[in-house]
Amino acid sequence: MTTAPATLRFKPLGIDTAYEHIVFMHAGCHVCRAEGFFAQTRIVVHAGDKSLIATLYVINDGLLSQDEISLSMGAQHFLGIAEGDPVSVSHVPYLRSASLIRAKIYGERLDRSAMQAIIDDTVTGRLSELHLSAFVTACAGDNLDLDEIVALTEAMVAAGERLSWPHEIVVDKHCVGGLPGNRTTPIVVAIVTACGLIMPKTSSRAITSPAGTADTMEVLAPVNLDLGAMRRVVEDTGGCLVWGGAMQLSPADDVLIRVERPLDLDSDGQLVASILSKKIAAGSNRVLIDLPVGPTAKIRSIEAAKRVSSRLEEVGRRVGIDVRTLITDGMQPVGRGIGPALEARDVLQVLRNEPGAPADLRERSLLLAGKVLEMGGKADGAALAAETLASGDAWRQFLRICEAQGGLREVPVAPLLHTVVAAATGRVANIDNRVLARIAKLAGAPQSVAAGVDLHVDLDDWVERGQPLFSIHAQAPGELRYARAFQAEHPNVILVEEA
Amino acid sequence: MTTAPATLRFKPLGIDTAYEHIVFMHAGCHVCRAEGFFAQTRIVVHAGDKSLIATLYVINDGLLSQDEISLSMGAQHFLGIAEGDPVSVSHVPYLRSASLIRAKIYGERLDRSAMQAIIDDTVTGRLSELHLSAFVTACAGDNLDLDEIVALTEAMVAAGERLSWPHEIVVDKHCVGGLPGNRTTPIVVAIVTACGLIMPKTSSRAITSPAGTADTMEVLAPVNLDLGAMRRVVEDTGGCLVWGGAMQLSPADDVLIRVERPLDLDSDGQLVASILSKKIAAGSNRVLIDLPVGPTAKIRSIEAAKRVSSRLEEVGRRVGIDVRTLITDGMQPVGRGIGPALEARDVLQVLRNEPGAPADLRERSLLLAGKVLEMGGKADGAALAAETLASGDAWRQFLRICEAQGGLREVPVAPLLHTVVAAATGRVANIDNRVLARIAKLAGAPQSVAAGVDLHVDLDDWVERGQPLFSIHAQAPGELRYARAFQAEHPNVILVEEA
Repeated sequence: MTTAPATLRFKPLGIDTAYEHIVFMHAGCHVCRAEGFFAQTRIVVHAGDKSLIATLYVINDGLLSQDEISLSMGAQHFLGIAEGDPVSVSHVPYLRSASLIRAKIYGERLDRSAMQAIIDDTVTGRLSELHLSAFVTACAGDNLDLDEIVALTEAMVAAGERLSWPHEIVVDKHCVGGLPGNRTTPIVVAIVTACGLIMPKTSSRAITSPAGTADTMEVLAPVNLDLGAMRRVVEDTGGCLVWGGAMQLSPADDVLIRVERPLDLDSDGQLVASILSKKIAAGSNRVLIDLPVGPTAKIRSIEAAKRVSSRLEEVGRRVGIDVRTLITDGMQPVGRGIGPALEARDVLQVLRNEPGAPADLRERSLLLAGKVLEMGGKADGAALAAETLASGDAWRQFLRICEAQGGLREVPVAPLLHTVVAAATGRVANIDNRVLARIAKLAGAPQSVAAGVDLHVDLDDWVERGQPLFSIHAQAPGELRYARAFQAEHPNVILVEEA
Repeated sequence: MTTAPATLRFKPLGIDTAYEHIVFMHAGCHVCRAEGFFAQTRIVVHAGDKSLIATLYVINDGLLSQDEISLSMGAQHFLGIAEGDPVSVSHVPYLRSASLIRAKIYGERLDRSAMQAIIDDTVTGRLSELHLSAFVTACAGDNLDLDEIVALTEAMVAAGERLSWPHEIVVDKHCVGGLPGNRTTPIVVAIVTACGLIMPKTSSRAITSPAGTADTMEVLAPVNLDLGAMRRVVEDTGGCLVWGGAMQLSPADDVLIRVERPLDLDSDGQLVASILSKKIAAGSNRVLIDLPVGPTAKIRSIEAAKRVSSRLEEVGRRVGIDVRTLITDGMQPVGRGIGPALEARDVLQVLRNEPGAPADLRERSLLLAGKVLEMGGKADGAALAAETLASGDAWRQFLRICEAQGGLREVPVAPLLHTVVAAATGRVANIDNRVLARIAKLAGAPQSVAAGVDLHVDLDDWVERGQPLFSIHAQAPGELRYARAFQAEHPNVILVEEA
């Protein structure tokens, strides 16, 4: 269009639409009429030297006058504007990325430049949710070949920030989720950095789970560090345990996960690109991936785990980092606590060598730490890991890291408790990870950090009728009531088979 | 959940989001906190005995109090509520259709019951835009087999209203769009019903084009008839030319088209199901499909047309209606006008046998009418069609239909005109249908009924420098300016090759 874009005045309305950019204009607005905009039109919004693409909603009421414009809070924040600032709008230009997604749907392969165009437009919000859904669908299952996965991984790295460290060897570990309570990371970081390796660990917060590693670590120490503070912690201690969310490492990954989740789609290629792009962007070059397998874990069969495993190792080779995988048991939760504070308590018990510490969490952490130590060049990793934990070196190192991040904190305890007991005598035959996670979330985790579920039994344990199976911890009566109502509807979340 | 849903009071905000259902609640609302709802959560909204699924946006401002709730205008209308009415919300239940879409993405075939579940949830708005996009993507190209297309067609028919007629033979015609000005339908209906066949024609309004058949017919007579009025017109005259949009014939089709359009995806299977479900729902059993082929038409190659053609005929057989196809030239617009009134003028010129009537529109209408007559059991259709038009019988029959629908109207003429002339002397080598359609839309069509483009040349015509190529008609100066600006950026919309 050659006509100059018309300017409107910004008026905030305080509408939070999460990630989705929405623009509001009055139905009688001359710009809407002149440009032929109506509800659901995608338009470019300009303010100062910034712009974004938003979906238009039309106001038929007094919320806006005809020369005012409003934006969802995220869009306002992105543009950095305040009440009265001038805003202009225009038509969305042709998007090459949209044509490339279309080509992929029709069976064409995407090369490096194509993947980069799609990922760049994903990160900047130029592609609509419809397009992102179509892209994710076109990549689902095993629909990306090795070249495409490599291209996607590298495009995702290039679309964000990339850390670098003055060390030849930088190790990392990652777990392909789905297993409540599996909080090995703080223990592994403490052990391997106590042994002199460099492990600058960035973790995520919970998206759909009752706690992410960053949520659990935040119970113990500040995790919301900027890049400078993180670097100082790593210089001081060799490691860190911080939240990676603010560092813009592979930001496309967060967008794609957001779209995949409600569709419940898994894509081998996207899983591999998701994991490896975050690790490469964080500057690590030797990465161990834990793949728990179980019917209620993220990976449900050994075959699926083997396929993902070979993809991870091969793509790692192609992008120049050493990736190894470990297929582990994902039949039941690890540790006893599910929820930030309860998991933090388990972590401390293991690090302090307390007699009642959960043995499964201890063993799994030692297994992973041993492998990471060997990837980092240490001989006999298993023995070294066990010795480092048993000697208290890991615990002292963990304290150093917490101090460097701002100081160790006290683990809070929830004021409200409800214990679920066995309705019959018998053997614990099954534990439903997904229902347990849901109970912990309804009890308030992760926002209420002390809330969650505390397990009192393991798979195959023999229990007597009336014996405690698990406790629900909550901070507010409403949340406890809610978790209990859901639990009552799922009496077999821990299935006791009568003898 | 066993807890009773909490009730909030409805407050209208006048926000038009088109088809998308949005629910607004205050950030501090106790329901949001208790249920764990946040921005973008999909939730069920109940009012009286109605409910719908909406996406939540969270208000952080004075627009709503903590015990108030608001809805987008479409959602408010759907629930039939007014200010102060009680509204409750709950979590979205498990959707079988979402799992079925997932199965299709992973390569499984969808049977009748699966297609019905997906289409039912499409029509009632239970599936999100993300899911619809994933479904459309999974069906793209040639990804539905014949059984699936039949299942989809029948599911789409079952999900809406279905008309029936007390006649053994009910004919219809359809054109697979993309060709501006191709307004044969009023002429075909007049001819074939003048010959005694039954043709109760329901047409659509423009979605992305400068005019739909219903828009053009509305220039000439009322088209917004309810089912009873439509039946009376057909009883009186044997035919009708009405808007089908309010009749809920295959409403899933409208939803799927809305999703496909921004993705620019074609699916043979969905195209076939889209066309045939509308025809079956309208009660016709002998259907002629016009497939114009050209680089800027909807179908771009003869191979694609042949593939779609065989699918249409085979699925027609399977669902019990006689479907025949006609592959036609889609290289240039048909008739001279593009836009409701300009097209209506062309239609009248042909029906009245005016000497200057556009020959291409006349010939194409006769070709189609002849085929429809033969499908309806008349011998020598081509000759019969030509005779019926030339004798004035078609024109008198058209007048009868217009009278029955409420009376023939005067065709309006636009007050503003801009004529584009040839920059050089030579041969008309190409006409870009899409750019011409866009100019007509920018000039105001179809909302401004007299607006549009009037063509003065055909493909292969010899033109002198300065000779008029086409005129832009507009009702408002702003619209004319806009169309001219766009036209200036596309000087070769009608390409004149110098000798």
